[in-house]
Amino acid sequence: MKLSKDQIASLNKDAAGGQKSAYEFLSEALETSGHDVGDLTRQIADFQIAIPSWALGAGGTRFGRFSMPGEPRNLEEKLADVGLLHALTGAAGAISLHIPWDTPEDYKAVREQAEEAGLVFDAMNSNTFQDQKGAGETYKFGSLSNSSEASRQQAVEHNLEVIRIGENLGSKSLTVWLADGANFPGQRNFQRALDRTADSLEKIYAALPEDWKLFIEYKPYEPNFYSTVIQDWGTSFMLANHCGPKAYTLVDLGHHLPNTNIEQIVATLMYKGKLGGFHFNDSKYGDDDLTVGSIKPYALFLIFNELVYGIRNNPDNPYPAWMIDASHNTKDPLEDLIQSLEAIREAYAKALLVDQKALESAQMEHDVVRCQEILQDAYRTDVRPLLRQARLLTGAAIDPIGAYRKLDVRRHLTDQRGRETVATGL
Amino acid sequence: MKLSKDQIASLNKDAAGGQKSAYEFLSEALETSGHDVGDLTRQIADFQIAIPSWALGAGGTRFGRFSMPGEPRNLEEKLADVGLLHALTGAAGAISLHIPWDTPEDYKAVREQAEEAGLVFDAMNSNTFQDQKGAGETYKFGSLSNSSEASRQQAVEHNLEVIRIGENLGSKSLTVWLADGANFPGQRNFQRALDRTADSLEKIYAALPEDWKLFIEYKPYEPNFYSTVIQDWGTSFMLANHCGPKAYTLVDLGHHLPNTNIEQIVATLMYKGKLGGFHFNDSKYGDDDLTVGSIKPYALFLIFNELVYGIRNNPDNPYPAWMIDASHNTKDPLEDLIQSLEAIREAYAKALLVDQKALESAQMEHDVVRCQEILQDAYRTDVRPLLRQARLLTGAAIDPIGAYRKLDVRRHLTDQRGRETVATGL
Amino acid sequence: MKLSKDQIASLNKDAAGGQKSAYEFLSEALETSGHDVGDLTRQIADFQIAIPSWALGAGGTRFGRFSMPGEPRNLEEKLADVGLLHALTGAAGAISLHIPWDTPEDYKAVREQAEEAGLVFDAMNSNTFQDQKGAGETYKFGSLSNSSEASRQQAVEHNLEVIRIGENLGSKSLTVWLADGANFPGQRNFQRALDRTADSLEKIYAALPEDWKLFIEYKPYEPNFYSTVIQDWGTSFMLANHCGPKAYTLVDLGHHLPNTNIEQIVATLMYKGKLGGFHFNDSKYGDDDLTVGSIKPYALFLIFNELVYGIRNNPDNPYPAWMIDASHNTKDPLEDLIQSLEAIREAYAKALLVDQKALESAQMEHDVVRCQEILQDAYRTDVRPLLRQARLLTGAAIDPIGAYRKLDVRRHLTDQRGRETVATGL
Amino acid sequence: MKLSKDQIASLNKDAAGGQKSAYEFLSEALETSGHDVGDLTRQIADFQIAIPSWALGAGGTRFGRFSMPGEPRNLEEKLADVGLLHALTGAAGAISLHIPWDTPEDYKAVREQAEEAGLVFDAMNSNTFQDQKGAGETYKFGSLSNSSEASRQQAVEHNLEVIRIGENLGSKSLTVWLADGANFPGQRNFQRALDRTADSLEKIYAALPEDWKLFIEYKPYEPNFYSTVIQDWGTSFMLANHCGPKAYTLVDLGHHLPNTNIEQIVATLMYKGKLGGFHFNDSKYGDDDLTVGSIKPYALFLIFNELVYGIRNNPDNPYPAWMIDASHNTKDPLEDLIQSLEAIREAYAKALLVDQKALESAQMEHDVVRCQEILQDAYRTDVRPLLRQARLLTGAAIDPIGAYRKLDVRRHLTDQRGRETVATGL
Repeated sequence: MKLSKDQIASLNKDAAGGQKSAYEFLSEALETSGHDVGDLTRQIADFQIAIPSWALGAGGTRFGRFSMPGEPRNLEEKLADVGLLHALTGAAGAISLHIPWDTPEDYKAVREQAEEAGLVFDAMNSNTFQDQKGAGETYKFGSLSNSSEASRQQAVEHNLEVIRIGENLGSKSLTVWLADGANFPGQRNFQRALDRTADSLEKIYAALPEDWKLFIEYKPYEPNFYSTVIQDWGTSFMLANHCGPKAYTLVDLGHHLPNTNIEQIVATLMYKGKLGGFHFNDSKYGDDDLTVGSIKPYALFLIFNELVYGIRNNPDNPYPAWMIDASHNTKDPLEDLIQSLEAIREAYAKALLVDQKALESAQMEHDVVRCQEILQDAYRTDVRPLLRQARLLTGAAIDPIGAYRKLDVRRHLTDQRGRETVATGL
Repeated sequence: MKLSKDQIASLNKDAAGGQKSAYEFLSEALETSGHDVGDLTRQIADFQIAIPSWALGAGGTRFGRFSMPGEPRNLEEKLADVGLLHALTGAAGAISLHIPWDTPEDYKAVREQAEEAGLVFDAMNSNTFQDQKGAGETYKFGSLSNSSEASRQQAVEHNLEVIRIGENLGSKSLTVWLADGANFPGQRNFQRALDRTADSLEKIYAALPEDWKLFIEYKPYEPNFYSTVIQDWGTSFMLANHCGPKAYTLVDLGHHLPNTNIEQIVATLMYKGKLGGFHFNDSKYGDDDLTVGSIKPYALFLIFNELVYGIRNNPDNPYPAWMIDASHNTKDPLEDLIQSLEAIREAYAKALLVDQKALESAQMEHDVVRCQEILQDAYRTDVRPLLRQARLLTGAAIDPIGAYRKLDVRRHLTDQRGRETVATGL
Repeated sequence: MKLSKDQIASLNKDAAGGQKSAYEFLSEALETSGHDVGDLTRQIADFQIAIPSWALGAGGTRFGRFSMPGEPRNLEEKLADVGLLHALTGAAGAISLHIPWDTPEDYKAVREQAEEAGLVFDAMNSNTFQDQKGAGETYKFGSLSNSSEASRQQAVEHNLEVIRIGENLGSKSLTVWLADGANFPGQRNFQRALDRTADSLEKIYAALPEDWKLFIEYKPYEPNFYSTVIQDWGTSFMLANHCGPKAYTLVDLGHHLPNTNIEQIVATLMYKGKLGGFHFNDSKYGDDDLTVGSIKPYALFLIFNELVYGIRNNPDNPYPAWMIDASHNTKDPLEDLIQSLEAIREAYAKALLVDQKALESAQMEHDVVRCQEILQDAYRTDVRPLLRQARLLTGAAIDPIGAYRKLDVRRHLTDQRGRETVATGL
Repeated sequence: MKLSKDQIASLNKDAAGGQKSAYEFLSEALETSGHDVGDLTRQIADFQIAIPSWALGAGGTRFGRFSMPGEPRNLEEKLADVGLLHALTGAAGAISLHIPWDTPEDYKAVREQAEEAGLVFDAMNSNTFQDQKGAGETYKFGSLSNSSEASRQQAVEHNLEVIRIGENLGSKSLTVWLADGANFPGQRNFQRALDRTADSLEKIYAALPEDWKLFIEYKPYEPNFYSTVIQDWGTSFMLANHCGPKAYTLVDLGHHLPNTNIEQIVATLMYKGKLGGFHFNDSKYGDDDLTVGSIKPYALFLIFNELVYGIRNNPDNPYPAWMIDASHNTKDPLEDLIQSLEAIREAYAKALLVDQKALESAQMEHDVVRCQEILQDAYRTDVRPLLRQARLLTGAAIDPIGAYRKLDVRRHLTDQRGRETVATGL
């Protein structure tokens, strides 16, 4: 199923009137405060977020999974789903693949399908946390950090293969998420596991094409419940430095202990030029992988405030790779992703509104009250007219969820794919 | 120092134009969605929050305290400070006293001063967590739960005295916060301490005037760091039921373990008709006592969503007593309280905007996506024009912090009271 | 596979010498401090813990599962596994079944097999968190709390069926664990969900046989990640009171927010006569379901200190139902359970050693240092000679894991059942 | 007040018999498992922990403080208190001073007093979290990270002065704990604050004598409740690397977010040769500063397991500086410190018992069950006979708290110093 520009334009007509006046009223207010609204709108329109191929079906927990009709059955259908998202939102111009779940059979066809939908291939993802059928070695006790050399070697080679696949698709980065760790004290020697991890990453890094980046993800726990070998940003940062200049830390919002000040981590990494990628989701308790902005939207805004600051002030830091990494246990995955895309752009837009000059001046004067007022003035602004305008600019839907429902997309997908399909993924 | 209506009206003139058009634009949009904006504005204007007498000076931590010039030196000056807040915001129409810090010498004068400033006396607060000079018994090892009968009796009698003082001022409720607990396992017998607490509360309850309420606060830790005798809402609720129909649970936002779903606690208590009072603040780590809405404004909105629902649907639950309970370590306390008052009314206004009928319908259909859209539509609305209009309605300042600064209030207070004053409190 | 008393006795011979002298040395020390060591040993030997039928195979996470050879394929093999555990440890004299995973076909045969192995049927467990094949209604949006009456009714009837099955086996209690909750704010109305839950539980309670108990479990999150309908002990306790005298709260160690003082909850529930059951496991981050005592053994001891106190001092509280509720992702489940059984009895034994009289006296004198010394004196004692002696008394193995390995149990089970079996469960 | 060897020896006589047989019985068991018990005992006896000068009086919270009679009034009396602790325990052979609270007037006298008591001067501590009377600049908005150059300079110079004082006493290290941070989002620019901190630390580092070390402490929150400039080990490690080879990270057990795996941090730092110092305490909720080992003794053991491993295997890591950093709110500080000293040595002794060779072998075989058994076998051993023997070896008391009470030390101190003394400190 594909959506044409005309279908969307036709739906947009109904909402055009309200949007016009709201946009004009907001524009006037923002221009009065010194903002260039046209520029703001374009920046928002340019902000693109990758969709992971494994998040297009229903997610589950260890207690089970409730199915979703019309799940994509293969890479082609996954690309089609992301294409739908991009057509509706104008914000999902990239897809992030996971190997072995998405190994292409026909590279050319895959590339063409993506190009037609306006999608690029963002970071490639390897999988060394599950045993594949027929695998020679098991990852039950680790992959890149395993005390067994054979397991480590298999994991390194898998990553090299993922790079090769990515090269054929035009991807430029590899994300390594290591589930390696321990469920019990004593199970592993921390120092030796770390040493082996550094060594394995070095080997992967050595095979990285010149124009690629390596993203090293961290996570404090799960699926191991006592320790994870790359438990925090400090460990990831240390390993990235060990590898070299093309290695970076990747921040996933859900991968932190309770109460962590994530925006400060972001600022520190950008200060050092080492923030490579970002995985969006939201959570209340752990790595809950909920819709972005559904639980702590102000924290998301504060993080974007640091990202915007870093993008402007840290020339050594590359432009980060953005990806949504959420699980869809009770919502239609496509609708859920539309909500996440909206929340990300909302936080980005509000961060763009922060009066950085006034903020710096208030900070220098220790005017804490005014610092807070400046941030909250931006946050309290209803930026939805800007987000809608950014979509209008690029031919996407003013109201993407409304359009998705009016066009009855899920029913069409179900008719086409069936009710009992299961997408590869978590 | 007092502010006249004229002083404020004169300052309001400058901002009147922008407010008029913003209010009209928002009103039109809200009326289109079926809201009665005049009624909304009045509801917001009617929402009054008590200021605690102990929060008008600089707060501190166990690592020390940095002073604030012009702190109030006595009850009269504390009343004056709250009067200033109320004049500026129209939202602080009550004061909550703490005994022995605020024991009046001349009840008539105190009542008259309050009345003139438009203030009522909200819940009275007792202090059994510190030893007063010359006290016969120590609270080092507890008060209402102490294994020493003499300490318990002193604590009970102190609470009875607080009630008597409150009666003379027109207060109608007593808040009991117990610091009692243990720093170490084994230090106390949980069951016996709970039993003694129930017994002491019963004695206080027995002395409660007919038209009074007893609020029982809970807190998981601090100042005791292993256990607190009333550690959670369940314990408070159990004790309130033990006492009788005039006893209620009091919720302080900062008194919860990491990740607690507070809005669900609020809903449960109102369902049972047992939510008596509410202490506002915000926090990232523990009982940080930061400005309301400065860290987790969406959580505050979700809590208000339950409060608004309960006020409408739980006739057995009394209208709750609202109070700010924050500490002002680096901000001017009066500016800080203005920010808190604004954040509370903002959350309240947004909760009033939630389309409860549509929400119920979406819930019944298990349309999770739409449920979220409905809540977030209300939350994303910029309600500041409503808050300003509510202030205009009651002669308060459109921009309270701006007015406070233009009128140079802190300088006047400092000139009058001195630079090195220290308010009684924490 | 079954183990005979002779097989075990023969293995015990090797370790008998060391055990004899260690037991005598410890006995002398304990008798000097006033303990009756024979009585202690018998109390330990009498302490029996139920094994859940679903924990005999490899567990997993949402990221996958690594298999374990020789998993039991049906109820008969599960009973055999628990029989092995009981033969080795003398501590696992009960099994807790889960319906529909363990619905017996031949009740008589099942009862006879259990009896022969010395096992009784502990609490029955229902499952309303997964959809069974061919089920008329889905639990995707809840079971006992679902806004759909049909779903609620199906869930209630399932529980009634579980009771009927349990009656045929001689079980005397039903544990209700509700996964019901929400992943997102707004998804459900807290008050209505609670009301429906109370109503459904009432219906189940009404069908409870005269001599049965109903255990209501609580959990703050997972598999729902925003709210759970029975989120904490306070909610469970409220619902148990609503149902009646045969309804009790069940505490699962992993079902608490970070830093919760669980021992105080235990004390409060026993004080009120409402602690019905207990699920043992350990955790560092969330409901990690790790081996009992592997992470926080001192916390376990403090909990047992309250349990022992309550068993002695709260005649209104029934003797609690004990069960292990852990997941075995990387260890052999049977070895893992042996470690859990050992840790539970260790904590119990140490709690029995606490000098309650001296403790009470130190508490009355506010001698905090001595209170701590008394608890830690018990905790620091190496009680393993007592645990071994308790096993010797009942014909179990001095060294259960050693025996399990020497007898090559897993290999025998694998030969018999196969390498790729998967037990029903999580 | 001083304790003579004779006084202690006389008290030891009573307990000598029991100790002799317990030590012999344990020794036999340990020798059988291949331990050299004489060597173990000597290692324990050699383990010395510094006492901070500010922890000899009653601590408090922001809610107040309950006094303790006989608190030391000056540096001389603080040295006397630590001398008493060392005489009783043989474990407190060092004192850690805090400037300006402990600025000596007569260096020679202070050095002689320390020497006579067998004490050395461990790390010096600076104070830039409080304003001293007459200070030119305030630290209200930070010290080494302050945007005000004058404040930064004052803070740097204070640290240089602390070094000079330390040089006169024979200290060899400086601990920098920065309270700097923010209470509110936006209050500070993370990147600039970090940059200024790096710059200030560089200046201090440049003044460090050749044979000194700089310890950089980290802490996630308190006294600032939104962010701390050095929030975690990663930031401290980054800054230490920035400074140079004499700069190290200092770990304080209480300075971590909920559920942090501290032992892994210890292992990582030692692997990199960057663990310089260690502050002991215990906690349940935050930086509770409770008696070491009173809440999570197993976690302490796991940390010591890594420390012992690192001391043996990381030649690049210096031998760490050990210090107790606890607060004594309800216990006699001296008794509390004795309990802490005992808990530290207990954890150390148990870590020495871990069979590292067997553990490595079990780890290589992925025998997770056995790994746990090995650690727990060491942990479950009652090592108190070893600790007592280590004290006997060095002329300290078999039962230090018993001796302290029999000798009525607190009464003597109170008679000498008075009931209402207040020690400088927190």
